[in-house]
Amino acid sequence: MSKHPLLSQLGSAEELHRMSVKQLGQVADEIRYVLCNLLHERTAHFASNLGVVELTLALHSTYDFRRDRLIWDTGHQIYPHKLITGRYDDFPTIRTKGGLMGYPNPHESEYDLFMTGHAGSSVATLSGLRSGDALQEDKLQGDKKRRAVAVIGDGAFPSGIVFEALNNISGLNQNVLIILNDNKMSICPRVGGVASYLDRLRTSPFYSGLKQEVVRILENVPLLGDPVERFLAQIKEGVKAGLHGGMLFEELGMRYLGPIDGHDIGLLRKYLKMVKDLEGPTLLHVVTEKGHGFKPAAEDPVFFHTPPAFCDENGTPVPKKGASHPAFTNVVSDAILNLMRKDERVTVLTAAMCQGNKLEQIRDEIPARFFDTGICESHAVAFAAGQAKTGLKPIVDIYSTFLQRSFDQIFQEVALQNLPVVFTLDRAGLTGPDGPTHHGAFDIAYMRCLPNIVVMAPGDAWDVAPMLDFALNQNGPVSLRYPKANAVNVCEGERQPVELGRAEVVRWGEDGAILCFGSLLGECLKGADLLAADGLAVGVVNMRFAKPIDSYVVERALRECGFVLTVEEGCLMGGFGSAVLEAASEMSLDSSRVKRLGIPDRFIEHAERAELLADLRL
Amino acid sequence: MSKHPLLSQLGSAEELHRMSVKQLGQVADEIRYVLCNLLHERTAHFASNLGVVELTLALHSTYDFRRDRLIWDTGHQIYPHKLITGRYDDFPTIRTKGGLMGYPNPHESEYDLFMTGHAGSSVATLSGLRSGDALQEDKLQGDKKRRAVAVIGDGAFPSGIVFEALNNISGLNQNVLIILNDNKMSICPRVGGVASYLDRLRTSPFYSGLKQEVVRILENVPLLGDPVERFLAQIKEGVKAGLHGGMLFEELGMRYLGPIDGHDIGLLRKYLKMVKDLEGPTLLHVVTEKGHGFKPAAEDPVFFHTPPAFCDENGTPVPKKGASHPAFTNVVSDAILNLMRKDERVTVLTAAMCQGNKLEQIRDEIPARFFDTGICESHAVAFAAGQAKTGLKPIVDIYSTFLQRSFDQIFQEVALQNLPVVFTLDRAGLTGPDGPTHHGAFDIAYMRCLPNIVVMAPGDAWDVAPMLDFALNQNGPVSLRYPKANAVNVCEGERQPVELGRAEVVRWGEDGAILCFGSLLGECLKGADLLAADGLAVGVVNMRFAKPIDSYVVERALRECGFVLTVEEGCLMGGFGSAVLEAASEMSLDSSRVKRLGIPDRFIEHAERAELLADLRL
Repeated sequence: MSKHPLLSQLGSAEELHRMSVKQLGQVADEIRYVLCNLLHERTAHFASNLGVVELTLALHSTYDFRRDRLIWDTGHQIYPHKLITGRYDDFPTIRTKGGLMGYPNPHESEYDLFMTGHAGSSVATLSGLRSGDALQEDKLQGDKKRRAVAVIGDGAFPSGIVFEALNNISGLNQNVLIILNDNKMSICPRVGGVASYLDRLRTSPFYSGLKQEVVRILENVPLLGDPVERFLAQIKEGVKAGLHGGMLFEELGMRYLGPIDGHDIGLLRKYLKMVKDLEGPTLLHVVTEKGHGFKPAAEDPVFFHTPPAFCDENGTPVPKKGASHPAFTNVVSDAILNLMRKDERVTVLTAAMCQGNKLEQIRDEIPARFFDTGICESHAVAFAAGQAKTGLKPIVDIYSTFLQRSFDQIFQEVALQNLPVVFTLDRAGLTGPDGPTHHGAFDIAYMRCLPNIVVMAPGDAWDVAPMLDFALNQNGPVSLRYPKANAVNVCEGERQPVELGRAEVVRWGEDGAILCFGSLLGECLKGADLLAADGLAVGVVNMRFAKPIDSYVVERALRECGFVLTVEEGCLMGGFGSAVLEAASEMSLDSSRVKRLGIPDRFIEHAERAELLADLRL
Repeated sequence: MSKHPLLSQLGSAEELHRMSVKQLGQVADEIRYVLCNLLHERTAHFASNLGVVELTLALHSTYDFRRDRLIWDTGHQIYPHKLITGRYDDFPTIRTKGGLMGYPNPHESEYDLFMTGHAGSSVATLSGLRSGDALQEDKLQGDKKRRAVAVIGDGAFPSGIVFEALNNISGLNQNVLIILNDNKMSICPRVGGVASYLDRLRTSPFYSGLKQEVVRILENVPLLGDPVERFLAQIKEGVKAGLHGGMLFEELGMRYLGPIDGHDIGLLRKYLKMVKDLEGPTLLHVVTEKGHGFKPAAEDPVFFHTPPAFCDENGTPVPKKGASHPAFTNVVSDAILNLMRKDERVTVLTAAMCQGNKLEQIRDEIPARFFDTGICESHAVAFAAGQAKTGLKPIVDIYSTFLQRSFDQIFQEVALQNLPVVFTLDRAGLTGPDGPTHHGAFDIAYMRCLPNIVVMAPGDAWDVAPMLDFALNQNGPVSLRYPKANAVNVCEGERQPVELGRAEVVRWGEDGAILCFGSLLGECLKGADLLAADGLAVGVVNMRFAKPIDSYVVERALRECGFVLTVEEGCLMGGFGSAVLEAASEMSLDSSRVKRLGIPDRFIEHAERAELLADLRL
C-alpha cells in the first residue's frame, strides 16, 4: 500500500470538497511526508511549504480554482498546491532539469496562473484579474462569477507594490480576498513597523484583561504640548492597546478578519466560507508556523528555508564529501567585513537576504552599520543614497534579479546624484534550479545604460577584494556583479592591480582573443588551453570593466587577433558584448570577426547552473 | 521701490527666524506675486507652488536647513524654497537653458539636497540621511544633531516606496518628521483607499457630534456570521467614525498630528516647534489648497498644474499665434480611443497622468475601461498583466521615465508570462524644460534587454494608428515610444503597412543610409535633402522596430552604402544603434562605417527640446 493512500489516489483538487476535516487532516499528514522525503533528495524550499499545508487544503476544498483565481505570492510555497493539482506523480522531479518548477508555472497546470518568484506583486495581479473578470462577467448574464484570492506572506507584505495594490483595490471596492500568511518570518526574521504591528495583532489583549490594559496605557502617554493633541494621543494609545484588531487595513478600506490559526483546517474552512461571497475587499489574517509538523524545521526556519540535501531522520545535514571552494557570496561578504573593520564609513544593506548574502557575521559583529530593510529593494537603494549623501559609503548587497525592483531609484537617487553607492549583485548570471524568476540576466544591460555608473565583475576569487576596495574609493556609483558559483583563483603569477577601465591581459595570442567579463574566466582559460593543444594561440583577457570599457584592449584584439570572442554570463541584448561592439564602432574598427557568447534573448528554464551553462555553450 | 521689498532684501533663509508671523505673511504675498508674474513669461509648475508658500516659510523660519535636512518630494513645488534660499535674483531664469532648474538642484544651492522629480522617494532618502547623520553624530560628542524633514504630497503618498520607507523608519524608530502636504490632488484628482482615508481624516466628526455619529454607525454595521467578528466590526466602525485621527499611521508606528491648516503660518510654526525635537517618527498632516491665493488656479488646479504661458490678469490663456500641429500625445490618445470603440477588450491605464496623457475624453466616454492607478506605476503594470490574463488587451500609458518604476513588473508580470500588454511610452526622448528627471532616455535599452518584448517607435504621425493596431494584435508585450513633440506626416506617397520587424525604406541612396528609429525621421529626411543638394545620394529608413530589428535592411545598408548613420532619441548605451551593431555582428558584417547618433552617456540638463536636440546634433 502506498504511504500516501489519499494523496496518491486524488483525481483532482475538487475531490477535496467532499472530504471531511478529518480526511483533509490525513491528506495534510501525507503531504508533509512527501515534503520531508524530498529533502532526502535535494535542496528545496522547505519550511515555508510545511507552513501552508492546511491553508492550501482549506482553500482548495472551499474554492474551485480551475475557475476561481488563486495567486501565490513569491511562489516558493507552491509544493502542497502542486501535489493536489495533478502533479503528485511528477513531484519527485521538482527543481530538476525538465522536471516540475519550484514555483508556479502556467505551462504545468491551469491551476497556476502566474510564474511568480519576486515578492509582493500578487495583490496587484489579483486586482487586475478581478478587474478583467468583472468587465467580462457584466456581459455574460447569469454566468457564475469568478472569485479572487491571493496568499501573501508577512515577509512580502511590506513591499511597496502591496500597499499600492491595497490602495487601488480599496478605491475600486473590488471583491477580492487577500490572505495574509503570517509566519513571523521573511526568509530571515522580519523587520519594520508592519512586523511589530502584526506582532501586536497576534498578542492583542482583546479577549482578556482589556480594561486594565487600557487604563495602564492611558496613564503612561507621553506628554505633548497641545492639550487637544494630548487628548487624542491618549485615545489612540488606548485603541492601540487592544480595543480592536486590524485598524491599519480597515483604515485603508479593507475588511479585516483574524488573526486565526492557520493549522486548523476546520477553522480555516469556516472563515473561508464566511468571506467567500462578501462584497468588497477582505483581508484574512492567518497565523502559521514555518516548518510546522517537522520539529527541526519549526525550531530553525531560517536554516530550513532552503536546507541542503540531507539523509538523517532528525534533519541533521550530512556533510558533503570532498574539498569544496567557498562561493563568491562568501568571498564578497568576507571582503565587505574586512573593509568595514578598516573604514567606519562603510555600511552594508540587505533586503531580507542576510542569510543568502552570508552577512550574519557582519550583522553580529557590526550591528550599527548593518541594515536589513526587509523585502523593500526600492527603499533600500534610496536609503543608501541618503546615507551616501551624509558621507558614508553604503554597500547595497542584493541579488541581481531583485535589484531590478530598484531600477528607478538607481536612476534618480544614485546615478543622477552621482553618489558613491556600491551595488554588490549576487546571483548575477544563471542561478540554477530556481529558474527564470531568479536568474540574474539583465543587470549588465540595465546598469550600463545609466550615466555615471561603473560596471564591474571579478574574473575570479582574487579579484574580489581589490575590486571592492576600488569600488569604495570611487566617487560615484559602482555595480559589482558575481555569480552563484564557487570562487577560485584561476590566474597564475602576479596580478595586475585594479584600475578604472583597465582590463587584465592574462595571456595573448594572435589566432584569437577571448574577452571575458566576469567569472567565466576559468572556463575561457580552459578553452584556450584546448585550442593551444590544437596549435592555436588564443589570448584570454579578464576585462573587469564593462563600463568604462578598455578600448585599448578591444582595439588591440581587433587589430592583432584572428577572431574575437566576448564572453559574459548576462543577456546578449545590450550587454558586455554590445559594449565591445560599441567601442569598436566608436573607433571605426571592423568588428565582423567578433562573436558574442552570453545568455540569449529568451527566458531560461531551471536546471543546475552547470547544465544551463553547457546548454548555452558557455 | 521694489514690488517685493522683504523678499528682494532677504540675505539668507535664516533671517526668517527673526521675522514675526505678520512679516512672514508679507513675504508670502510677495512670493505669490513673483510666481504669478512668472506665468506671464512661460509654462511652469504653478498651482502646487502657490499651495506651499506658507509651509515653506514656516519650515525655514523654524529649522536651519543648511544643517538640518529637508527633502521636497517630487520637487516641482520648490519655487518658494528657491526664492528664499539665495535665488531670488536668478529666479526669472527658471526652466530656461542655463538658468535655474524647475526642481531641486544640489548644484545650485546647499539647501537642495537631492535632484527629485519622480514621486515618493523622499521618505526613504530622508531615512537614509537620518541614519547617516545618526551614525556620525554618535562619534561627535556634544555636536548639534541635524533634524530631518520631508515634505510629501498626498498624490505621491500611495507610491509603494513611501510605505516601504515608513515601515523601515518605524522599525528603526528614527527621529524624522514627515509632512504630508494634503491638497486633495495628485496632478489629477486622487484615487484609492489612502485618498478616501485622508478625506475622512479631514472631515472627522471628532470635534462635534461624535456620540450621535458613533451610535448611528453602530446601528448600521453589516452582518457577519461570527458573533466575535460582528462585535469587532461594530467597534471598528465606531472608531472609524471619528474616535481618533491617523490610526493608519499610528498603527505603522508613527506619531500622527493634524490635520492642520497649511496656510496659517502661525499655526504651522507652533506645530513645527512642538514636534521639532520629539523622539521617534512623526507625521504632520497639513491641509493646503493647490493654487491658494490666486482664484483661477484654486478653482482649476488641474489646468494650473503647468499652465501655458499667459498674459491676462485673470489667468485666461492667450491663444498662440499661427497654425499648430497636434502633439504625439494627442495622436496616440485619439488612436487609443478609436481602438477602444472598436474592441471591447481594450482597456487603458494611466498613473495619475490623465491630463498629461490626454485621456480625458476616454475617461469620460468609456469610464469602465479607463483606469487611473494614481502614482503607482508598479501596481499599474502588474494590474495590467492580471487584466491581460483574463483576455483583455490593456494599454499602459505612462511616460518613459516613470515606467522605469515598473521595470521589475515589466520583467516578471508581463515579459516572463508573455502577456499581451501594450506600453505606450509618452515623453520618450528629451522632454525639455523639466530636465534630467523627466527625459525619457533609457527605455529602448531597458525594454530591449527583456525577452518577448517587441520594441517599436513611429517615424511620424501616420505611423501611430497602424502601429497601435499592430501592437494590440500581437500575442505578447509591445513597447511603443514617442516623444513630447508635434506629430506630422513626413513621408509622401503610399505608406508601407506595419509588419513585425520590417522597416520602411523611405528613400535609398548609395552614398549613405540613415537608419532612423522614431520620430526624428523628419529631421533625417531634411538632412538627406541637404546632402542631396551637395550631390550625395543618401537613403533614409523608417526603422519602426528596434526589436526585432530588420536585419535585411541593416545588411543591405552595410553592403551597398558608403556610410550608415543610426539615429534615435534615446541613450546610446545599449540602445537602437547598438541593436544595429549586434545585427551586423550576427551576420559577420563589417560595421566600422556605422556612426550612432543619440543621447550620450551623461545626464542632460533642462532646456527647450529643440535646443537640446541641436546641442546633441540630433
